[in-house]
Amino acid sequence: MTMPTPLTGVVPPVCTPLTPEREVDTASLVRLVDHLVSGGVDGLFVLGSSSETAYLTDGQRKVVIDTVAGHVGGQLPVLAGAIDMTTPRVLDQVRAVTAAGADGVVVTAPFYTRTHPAEVARHFRLVAAGSPVPVFAYDLPVSVHSKLTAELVLDLAAEGVLAGLKDSSGDEGNFREAVLGARGRADVPGFSVLTGSETVVDAALGMGADGVVPGLGNVDPEGYVRLYRYCREGEWALARAEQERLCGLFGMVRVGDAGRMGGSSSALGAFKAALFLRGVIACPATAEPQVPLSSGEVERVGKFLAGAGLL
Amino acid sequence: MTMPTPLTGVVPPVCTPLTPEREVDTASLVRLVDHLVSGGVDGLFVLGSSSETAYLTDGQRKVVIDTVAGHVGGQLPVLAGAIDMTTPRVLDQVRAVTAAGADGVVVTAPFYTRTHPAEVARHFRLVAAGSPVPVFAYDLPVSVHSKLTAELVLDLAAEGVLAGLKDSSGDEGNFREAVLGARGRADVPGFSVLTGSETVVDAALGMGADGVVPGLGNVDPEGYVRLYRYCREGEWALARAEQERLCGLFGMVRVGDAGRMGGSSSALGAFKAALFLRGVIACPATAEPQVPLSSGEVERVGKFLAGAGLL
Amino acid sequence: MTMPTPLTGVVPPVCTPLTPEREVDTASLVRLVDHLVSGGVDGLFVLGSSSETAYLTDGQRKVVIDTVAGHVGGQLPVLAGAIDMTTPRVLDQVRAVTAAGADGVVVTAPFYTRTHPAEVARHFRLVAAGSPVPVFAYDLPVSVHSKLTAELVLDLAAEGVLAGLKDSSGDEGNFREAVLGARGRADVPGFSVLTGSETVVDAALGMGADGVVPGLGNVDPEGYVRLYRYCREGEWALARAEQERLCGLFGMVRVGDAGRMGGSSSALGAFKAALFLRGVIACPATAEPQVPLSSGEVERVGKFLAGAGLL
Amino acid sequence: MTMPTPLTGVVPPVCTPLTPEREVDTASLVRLVDHLVSGGVDGLFVLGSSSETAYLTDGQRKVVIDTVAGHVGGQLPVLAGAIDMTTPRVLDQVRAVTAAGADGVVVTAPFYTRTHPAEVARHFRLVAAGSPVPVFAYDLPVSVHSKLTAELVLDLAAEGVLAGLKDSSGDEGNFREAVLGARGRADVPGFSVLTGSETVVDAALGMGADGVVPGLGNVDPEGYVRLYRYCREGEWALARAEQERLCGLFGMVRVGDAGRMGGSSSALGAFKAALFLRGVIACPATAEPQVPLSSGEVERVGKFLAGAGLL
Repeated sequence: MTMPTPLTGVVPPVCTPLTPEREVDTASLVRLVDHLVSGGVDGLFVLGSSSETAYLTDGQRKVVIDTVAGHVGGQLPVLAGAIDMTTPRVLDQVRAVTAAGADGVVVTAPFYTRTHPAEVARHFRLVAAGSPVPVFAYDLPVSVHSKLTAELVLDLAAEGVLAGLKDSSGDEGNFREAVLGARGRADVPGFSVLTGSETVVDAALGMGADGVVPGLGNVDPEGYVRLYRYCREGEWALARAEQERLCGLFGMVRVGDAGRMGGSSSALGAFKAALFLRGVIACPATAEPQVPLSSGEVERVGKFLAGAGLL
Repeated sequence: MTMPTPLTGVVPPVCTPLTPEREVDTASLVRLVDHLVSGGVDGLFVLGSSSETAYLTDGQRKVVIDTVAGHVGGQLPVLAGAIDMTTPRVLDQVRAVTAAGADGVVVTAPFYTRTHPAEVARHFRLVAAGSPVPVFAYDLPVSVHSKLTAELVLDLAAEGVLAGLKDSSGDEGNFREAVLGARGRADVPGFSVLTGSETVVDAALGMGADGVVPGLGNVDPEGYVRLYRYCREGEWALARAEQERLCGLFGMVRVGDAGRMGGSSSALGAFKAALFLRGVIACPATAEPQVPLSSGEVERVGKFLAGAGLL
Repeated sequence: MTMPTPLTGVVPPVCTPLTPEREVDTASLVRLVDHLVSGGVDGLFVLGSSSETAYLTDGQRKVVIDTVAGHVGGQLPVLAGAIDMTTPRVLDQVRAVTAAGADGVVVTAPFYTRTHPAEVARHFRLVAAGSPVPVFAYDLPVSVHSKLTAELVLDLAAEGVLAGLKDSSGDEGNFREAVLGARGRADVPGFSVLTGSETVVDAALGMGADGVVPGLGNVDPEGYVRLYRYCREGEWALARAEQERLCGLFGMVRVGDAGRMGGSSSALGAFKAALFLRGVIACPATAEPQVPLSSGEVERVGKFLAGAGLL
Repeated sequence: MTMPTPLTGVVPPVCTPLTPEREVDTASLVRLVDHLVSGGVDGLFVLGSSSETAYLTDGQRKVVIDTVAGHVGGQLPVLAGAIDMTTPRVLDQVRAVTAAGADGVVVTAPFYTRTHPAEVARHFRLVAAGSPVPVFAYDLPVSVHSKLTAELVLDLAAEGVLAGLKDSSGDEGNFREAVLGARGRADVPGFSVLTGSETVVDAALGMGADGVVPGLGNVDPEGYVRLYRYCREGEWALARAEQERLCGLFGMVRVGDAGRMGGSSSALGAFKAALFLRGVIACPATAEPQVPLSSGEVERVGKFLAGAGLL
C-alpha cells in the first residue's frame, strides 16, 4: 500500500517470536501481528532493533517479512528495517524486504566503519536512489555510534531522500528540532517524525511528533493507542496518567541481572516473557548469544504485567 | 590446508580491488595476491577491515573468497573474516567462507547490539562450535565498540574455542598481556597472537608476538617480510630502520581531507591509490559511500611511495 | 535563606560577565542579577556550567558568589556550583561558597578520575556530611563522562544525602524516572527535580518536574517565567507556543563556526553576545581558551534576538 | 635546577602517602622520595595521576611540592602536575608549583568543558606564556576525554610552547609518530618524549623514546632503572626479561574487585599497599572517595611483590 504522508499514529516495532531452537515461530508471529492490529495500531515496523534484527539471518529476515506482509499486506503500512553496515549491504536488504512487500524501509547511518557526515548523506542518497519505497532514517546512536542531526535529516528530506525519521536516540532536544523543522520548513512536506522512546510519548506528541514506535507496544498496544488518542485530543491529564502507567510497565526492561547479561538481553527478554505470559507467543526465547532471563526474572515480569493491569 | 599452530609471519589483510562500477575486479585481485605471495608473505587474510568487508555484499564476499582460495588454496593459509553483527549471522558467514575454502575464520565480538562479557564469551563458543576451521578473535574496538581483554581471549583459548587473536586495538598493554599469557600458560598451546598495528610491528615482535597483519603490507609486502625476518633474527637496529621507513610510508593514510571524508575513506583510498600507482590493480575505487580521494590527494600518495623507494 | 523543599520555578544559571581582561565584571554581574530578578525568576544558580565555572579561578569564583549573595541574599535562594574533580576538592569549594552565603550547593560525580557507582555514592555522602546546606546532584555526562541514574539519586535522597537533581543530561527517560520516583516514593519528601534542557521545558514540567535551570534564561528570563506559569496553569497550547519561540531563540548556540571553535565557545559566546546586545552586560568576552565569536557571528546572534522579539 | 633538554631516563610519578585521616604524610613522602632517589631515578614527577593529584586539595598539593622540592631541590629535576580544568585555573596551579620550586610543569588539554583542537592549542600557548618553567603536555584521554595528536604536540614544540610530551594514552602508534617527529624535525630540538605505560617501556625506548614515567616505578624503581639501562645499552634480551618481570608485578593493579570499586582505586590502592608492605610508607590509605582494598586484596599485592622478588 502507499505510505501515508506523513505516517502517523502507533507503529510498534514487531518482536520476532522464536522457537526453542531459535527459528522464527511464524504461528506466534501471526498471533502477535493480530494482537497488535486488534489493539488498534496504525502500522507495523518489522526487522527493527526490538525485532532482534541484528540477530536474525537473512533467511530468517525473509521469513519475517514474508509472514507479516503476507498476513496484513494492504491493511496497514508495513515498514521494514534494512539494517546492515554500509550502502551496498543495505541495498541488498532493501531489495529483499521490498520484494517481499515492505511499504517503507528504515535505514541507519553506516556502522562498524568510521564515517563522516558527508558519507552519511551520500549513504542515504544512494539508498534512496535504489529503493522503490520511501526511506526513513533510523537514529540509534547506542548501536550506530554516530548521531543524525535534525539539520542533516531535514536537508535530506528537502532533497527528496528521506520520508521520515525514527528517533530512538533519547535526545529530545534534537528530536524537537526535527519536529519544528518538519512543521516549519516549506520544503519538507509530509515528512514524518516518529519517536521510539517508550516513556516520553506524551511529551513527544505534545511537541508535535507524528507518531510513536514503542517496543513496549508489543506488550500493551491498547495502552499506546489510548495514549496516542488522548494526546491528539488534547486530553493531557489522561495522557499523562496513561503514560505513567506505561512507564511503570516499562520497568520490566531492567529485570535481568546486569552482572550476568547485557541490557539488550534484559529488555528484549522481558518483552518476550511478557508476550509469553500474556499468551500471545508460544516461547519467550531470545536469539543467541543473548543470555536468557532466569525463571525468577520472568516471574518479576509477571509482576510488572499485574501492576499495569495486564494479567 | 591445515592452519599452522601457531600461525606466524606476515599475513596481510588483502585489499579488495573494485571496478569503476564497484564490482569486485577479480583480475586485479589475482594480481594483488600474486604480488603478496611473490613478496614472501606467510598467509593471506581476506574479508577483513582493510578488505572493505563492511562494504561488500554477500555476493561480493563470495567472489573474493572464491577467487583467492581458488588461486592460492593449499599454497599458504587463507584466513577469512566472518564479519557480522551477532552469532547467527556470523555463523552464516562462517559457512560461506569455509565452503569456499577458508582455512581459518576471523570473528569480532557482537556489534550494533549492546553486549556483555558473558555474551561475548557465549558468542565465540557458539561460533567455534559451528565452525569447521579454527577461529581467531578480532579485537577492533574502533568498529566493534567493545574491548576483548587478554584474560577473556586466553580463557577461551584454553577451552579450545579460539586459535588466535588478531589485535587491531592499538592497546599494546593488553596485547603484551595476551602474548605473555600465550607463552606462559600451559593450557593454550599453539595460540597465535597477531598484531594489526602497522607502525609498531618491531615492538610487537620484540614482545614475542607470532605475526603481523598489516594493511600497509598490501603496498609493500617485501618491507614487512624483511621487517619480520630482522626481528626473528634479533637484528633490532635493522628492524627499527625498516620499521621507520614503513612508518614514513604509512603517513599516506592521512592524505584525505578530514573535513571532506572519514578516516576510513582516507586510509583505504590511499592503500588502493598506492596499489594503482604501483601497477598492481587497475582502478583505485573504494566502495560506497566512501568519498574518493581527489587527484591531488592521489598525487600525495605517490610522494609517499617515492619517499619509501617504491616508485 | 532556607531552601524551599522542593525548590521550584525558574532558577537560571547566571552567566559570569567578564571584562576585556577576563576579570569578573561585578557591575555587569549585578545588572544581570537585577535583570533576572526583575524578570521574575525564583532563584539563582551561580558557578554552573553556563557561568563558565570551569574557567574561573578560585579567586574569581569567590568574587562571583560574594557579589551575587551580597546583592540578593535573603531575597531568593542562591544555589552555587561546587565543581571540582573529587570529594576533597569539592569540599573545599563547598566551604568557600557556603561561607559566602550560598543557600544550596550543586555537585557532580567525580570526574577526571575513573570512578564507580559505589564511589559516586560515597562521594555524595561525604560531600553532604561536610556541607552546611542542601546538596543538589548535577547530572552532566557531556562533562563528567558518567551518568547519574534515577535510582542512585533517589536512594541517596532517601538517605538524606541529596535535596534535588539538576539534570542537564538530555536523557528525558531517566529524567522522567527521577520525577516519578520523587513523587511516588514516600521516602524522598521535598526532593526537587530540575531540568537544564532549555528546549524541552514544557515537556519536563508536563511530566511533573519541579523547575527549570535554563542557560538561555539569562537572555530571556521573562520568557521562561511565562513558560513556567503557563505549564503550572495547564495552559499547554500557550506553553508550547512560548517554548517554540524560545526554541527559535536557542538556535543562537550554533552561530559559532564548528571548524574554528568548540560547542561551548559557541553557546556561551552567543549567550554573552545576546546579553551585551540587550545592554545588560558591558562586554561579551568569554574566558580563555575559548575562541571568541567573530563580528559576523555576533550579528547573527542579533538576528535571533530580533526573531524572538527581544531587540 | 635547569631542566635537561631533552629530559631522559626514569622519572617516576611520585605517590602521595596519606595518613589514616587523609592528610599528606610528609615523613612517608620524604622516605618515598629517598627510596626513589637511592633507586637511581633521573627525576621526579609530583602531582600527577599516580600521585592522586585529582584528589588533593590545593593546600595538600602545596604540602607535596614544598616537601619534595625542599628535600631534593637541585639534586634532580622535579616536574609537577598543574592539573585543572582550563587555562585560568591551570595558570593558578602553575604559579603555585613553580613558586614552590618545580623545574617543569605537566599540563593536560582542557577537560570538563567541551573543547576543540584550536582551543587546545590556544590553551597550551597561554599556559606556556604564563609559566616560568618548561611545559610538558600530558596526554591522558581516559581522564581528559580528548587526544593530543603527535602533529599538534610537535607543532607547539616548534613554536617554543612545549618542552616535552608525557604520553599515558596507551596509543603507541601516535607515540611513535611523536618520537619520530622529535628526532626527525629540525625545528624541535631537545623535545622530550616520555611514556607513562609501565608494561611497554622496552618497546617505547626501542622506538627512541627519551624516558619513562612509570607509576609502578614507585614500587620498584631499581627495576625500571635497570630496564632503562639495558635498553640504552642495546641489551634487548635482558631488557625484555626485566620488562616481563615488571609486567608480572604490574598485575597487582587488578587486585581490587571491579564489582566493588573503580580501576583507579584498585591500581592506586595496590601501589600504596605495596609501598606499605615494603616498609616505605606508614599507611596505605588512598584519598576519598576511593574504596579501599580489603585485607585479602592487600594480601594478594604481597604475593605479586613476592613473585617479583621484592618481599
